[in-house]
Amino acid sequence: MFRFSNGNRQIRQPFPHFPSNLQYEDQRHMTKRIDNFSAGPATLPAAVLEEARENLLSLGDSGIGILEHSHRSKTFLSVYEKAVAYCRLVAGIPDDYDILFLQGGASLQFVMLPMNFLGSDQTADYLNTGAWSKKAIAEAKRFGNVHIACTSEDRNFCYIPDEVSQSDSPAYVHFTSNNTIYGTEFSTEPGLPEGAFLACDASSDIFSRPMNVSRYGIIYAGAQKNLGPSGVTLVIIRKDLVARGNSELPTMLRYSTHADKDSMFNTPPTFGIYIVGLILKWIEEQGGLTAMQEKNRNKAGRLYDFLDSSDMFTPTADRNSRSMMNVTFITGNNDLDAKCIAEATAAGLDGLKGHRSVGGLRASIYNAFPPEGVDRLVQFLKDFELKYG
Amino acid sequence: MFRFSNGNRQIRQPFPHFPSNLQYEDQRHMTKRIDNFSAGPATLPAAVLEEARENLLSLGDSGIGILEHSHRSKTFLSVYEKAVAYCRLVAGIPDDYDILFLQGGASLQFVMLPMNFLGSDQTADYLNTGAWSKKAIAEAKRFGNVHIACTSEDRNFCYIPDEVSQSDSPAYVHFTSNNTIYGTEFSTEPGLPEGAFLACDASSDIFSRPMNVSRYGIIYAGAQKNLGPSGVTLVIIRKDLVARGNSELPTMLRYSTHADKDSMFNTPPTFGIYIVGLILKWIEEQGGLTAMQEKNRNKAGRLYDFLDSSDMFTPTADRNSRSMMNVTFITGNNDLDAKCIAEATAAGLDGLKGHRSVGGLRASIYNAFPPEGVDRLVQFLKDFELKYG
Repeated sequence: MFRFSNGNRQIRQPFPHFPSNLQYEDQRHMTKRIDNFSAGPATLPAAVLEEARENLLSLGDSGIGILEHSHRSKTFLSVYEKAVAYCRLVAGIPDDYDILFLQGGASLQFVMLPMNFLGSDQTADYLNTGAWSKKAIAEAKRFGNVHIACTSEDRNFCYIPDEVSQSDSPAYVHFTSNNTIYGTEFSTEPGLPEGAFLACDASSDIFSRPMNVSRYGIIYAGAQKNLGPSGVTLVIIRKDLVARGNSELPTMLRYSTHADKDSMFNTPPTFGIYIVGLILKWIEEQGGLTAMQEKNRNKAGRLYDFLDSSDMFTPTADRNSRSMMNVTFITGNNDLDAKCIAEATAAGLDGLKGHRSVGGLRASIYNAFPPEGVDRLVQFLKDFELKYG
Repeated sequence: MFRFSNGNRQIRQPFPHFPSNLQYEDQRHMTKRIDNFSAGPATLPAAVLEEARENLLSLGDSGIGILEHSHRSKTFLSVYEKAVAYCRLVAGIPDDYDILFLQGGASLQFVMLPMNFLGSDQTADYLNTGAWSKKAIAEAKRFGNVHIACTSEDRNFCYIPDEVSQSDSPAYVHFTSNNTIYGTEFSTEPGLPEGAFLACDASSDIFSRPMNVSRYGIIYAGAQKNLGPSGVTLVIIRKDLVARGNSELPTMLRYSTHADKDSMFNTPPTFGIYIVGLILKWIEEQGGLTAMQEKNRNKAGRLYDFLDSSDMFTPTADRNSRSMMNVTFITGNNDLDAKCIAEATAAGLDGLKGHRSVGGLRASIYNAFPPEGVDRLVQFLKDFELKYG
């Protein structure tokens, strides 16, 4: 009984009884949690972790822990079905798309995508906006021709190019919607030549804002940033593409293998699917993707506002290319950067060291990162600037 | 300071401080756990689950849960290093072998093995002892020639063939050490022609008994039976093979990629690695693989002894091919099998339904399955036979 019109949700809480035996009154477990700005694996909602914790020795009253349930059991099938249904609900995914839970991260998708859809005489367009785009490009070149439709490498990937040059008739157009390392993010999807489909590595911003899934042929994302633990990869793929993939490939590398068997051709990462389901339910309870976007805009906005007003810190990404997920900034002095990171760590603000290719600091503030943590970071940076500025 | 002589351990407890904040006194969590005979994912030691539970919101006193730690963090690197070290210790793995934690299960290894080591003009010998062997064979055929060195398909894989016919100069010899579906297990490794290496899918009996790793080129195992949760694959591979693998392959499908980066070319399944490390520590605490073998022989022995004495139940595997991990048996009457499974389930003995290709019942009793559970099953079967015999 799902109805989707323009991505609006008609039904908000179809599964109130997702396995749960939360015991929030439990005081002994209130271990002090620190602010974790890690780029991934990353902060998850405490409520989800508490629910998982209570189901480790027995999922609900099954007498068997979530790690121990056969993937063929009715209990686990219910977990799987709810994860799929919540995914469809939260992102407004039309019925002509399959939702797959695979393994191997985005890195294996860099291989599977061209392996399935790029013939040796065909061309795919790739937008080169960072290190992960480059890795995707390198793998695609093993299978066919790659046309670099744009690149921001001239300025160390600190921006999303405005102009995209399309090739004549690409098989698909691939882009990385958010560039974790460089703190840049596409504000809209790139244009698409007729006959091509759009492929997106959305690992670091999936479900951080509403998305119009019907514009895409395939969206994939390693779970470990916005969706759950590492070790499970969400793939949303149009069914006609599943059917069209190269049928001569090794079984595990065909999308059709996994789609035909509801992600259970072989034993799936059951715990990862369970956590992703809980996260999707949590997103829905937070108000869905529109509310997530609002919350993420506020969080990132408060941090960027401070950085823009600071005399010590400077954001590294161009203003109109800024990521809501990964906020990268520098002092311009490597020693001062290092001092800032060390003092932040000592103050319980962890994981702020920027990637070596950008340097400086990076605050990864995905969906589950709490707004109060951003406020604590801003206050810390203000104090640091007062002290050393 | 590890010294290995003939697989004997010189040092037993090098890491007494593996992250732990167990609180065994916690009574509220003593949910009744039932006997879970699932073939995988399968029963894990309660002590390991309790430890994992206590570290979900904060790993030790880090303030960051085990699911949320960056794989590049010092805290997680310590988890990873201990998992590798325990693996080396428990199985007596020589220094010239790499220990990898990959994704995709045995099914992806069915592809990676021939992709890396079987040229199109080469032959590999495969021992065909069940459904999983057949799947491995099907994938290998995509890359080179496969010689079926033996098969037990003539009697629905109910035995391990004595005779193996080797091809002239195979690249490698592949076998499935334990056949989960058919309840058969190799008692020793098959012979190996000069110049070839031995490859083993040990998914369902790894670390259930001592193994002489130096006889193998590569051993791989999905973790979800004897090692941990689904979603992580242990690969033990000789370093000279890693170096010899096809270097033209997609990056993620080369063993060298993962070996060169200590399983962190991309984000590894961090939680799975953590649990595998705890399980390996638990095995060591139980007395290592020799003690495991003794315990497993006792468990399986008690069940087989009853089945051999029963007028109602018959083991399906030939006596000298019987598995210590998966005990398969039938009444010879499908309706009676179904009644037995239903009554067992109602009595808290779960997951006993045999695979459809064998029918009847299957009791999977891996390392972590408690001996008392086997006794409860034997008692149940005795009672059932009295009632309906």
